[in-house]
Amino acid sequence: MKDIQVVGFDADDTLWVTEPHFQAAGREFGGLMAPWASAEKAAEELYATEMANLGTYGYGAKSVMLSMLETALRLGGDKVPAATLRKVLESGRRLLDYPMELLPGVEGVLKELRGRYRLVLITKGDLLDQERKLRGSGLKAYFHHVQILSDKRESDYRDLLATLGVEPRRFLMVGNSLKSDILPVLALGGCGVHIPYEVTWRHEHVEGASPDPARFRQLKDISGLPGLLAR
Amino acid sequence: MKDIQVVGFDADDTLWVTEPHFQAAGREFGGLMAPWASAEKAAEELYATEMANLGTYGYGAKSVMLSMLETALRLGGDKVPAATLRKVLESGRRLLDYPMELLPGVEGVLKELRGRYRLVLITKGDLLDQERKLRGSGLKAYFHHVQILSDKRESDYRDLLATLGVEPRRFLMVGNSLKSDILPVLALGGCGVHIPYEVTWRHEHVEGASPDPARFRQLKDISGLPGLLAR
Repeated sequence: MKDIQVVGFDADDTLWVTEPHFQAAGREFGGLMAPWASAEKAAEELYATEMANLGTYGYGAKSVMLSMLETALRLGGDKVPAATLRKVLESGRRLLDYPMELLPGVEGVLKELRGRYRLVLITKGDLLDQERKLRGSGLKAYFHHVQILSDKRESDYRDLLATLGVEPRRFLMVGNSLKSDILPVLALGGCGVHIPYEVTWRHEHVEGASPDPARFRQLKDISGLPGLLAR
Repeated sequence: MKDIQVVGFDADDTLWVTEPHFQAAGREFGGLMAPWASAEKAAEELYATEMANLGTYGYGAKSVMLSMLETALRLGGDKVPAATLRKVLESGRRLLDYPMELLPGVEGVLKELRGRYRLVLITKGDLLDQERKLRGSGLKAYFHHVQILSDKRESDYRDLLATLGVEPRRFLMVGNSLKSDILPVLALGGCGVHIPYEVTWRHEHVEGASPDPARFRQLKDISGLPGLLAR
């Protein structure tokens, strides 16, 4: 991948561990709903609530918390005890302060690429929460620019590349979500490196994508990135 | 105020009506808590919860919703009915889709200043919600740059001015909150125009401020801004 000037990095599950915490919170929620629904039914209802609220609440932990409370009030009807709702709130709140855990190799790769490319962190979700995670990660100094977006659609990337003053073909995005990190960038004429994470939020699943191999690669982990860029 | 190159505008209660909606939601919350607390006590408890959560949740409607639910679960103890909590959720949700109402004179002033200054919108709060309000306002095209911050401290303005490439003395911030819009900018060596709104969130109150009159003015409404800048 030659002529790349700017490398964009997704954060959640690309630089640091996120989704396992959300999945754990989902399982905890399922347990709390046991008097009224099976774990499968609770998960299904929660996902449906999250999708219905996405346009209004957006991404992030506070949105998940509100959707959990709404789902509990629906599943439990008028019988849901205040104590259960309090536990839902506490469990959701842990999504805002779990310990930061960088994925293997991340810091070394950023260190290696820093002098050669403009590095940009591009995440979606809650502004304050992403800022806190970035601070906790100790990675802030590696990035020329940090952009927290409400969504990662093609138009969001187009605006961002204009702000950065970079041509799409000189931009490479690295991330774990084909749907949010890779496909919209490829559609603009940019490049993408997909690094799947062990678990993916269902909303980020995508099927039948077969991107142009000249501008798209998949890596098992981030340590292969400098070699790929040098080739 | 001469030599100004960039004019920053706060949004909530500077360009459009916001706080009255939050105050109405607070009164509604007080009504729902009537079985367990006086209106004053409910307001006091809600404010205390919001302040305790501010560092974790940040500003914005979703944070208020979560604090309302937490306060209801505390005030009502184990007796709070699911129906009441559902109403709290619905009432809070209206904070995310009330009709946009511009303050008088706003669009005319932006039109007049647009060619002469770089205009920047600088708000704090929830990313998605502020984007939605901006879209609804029809004002987006007047701004060279839109910055949604998690907070408006001196360091946030310092970073923003560096990004914009403007010297503090050539930057003027216009807003309804002395605490968030004016004092941190004056502290950096910038200029401020304070336009008080009819109601101010208690958290934004500040006392005993006596800013340097050479770089600070107060206006009754936004229509006086072009004249002030020309002088």
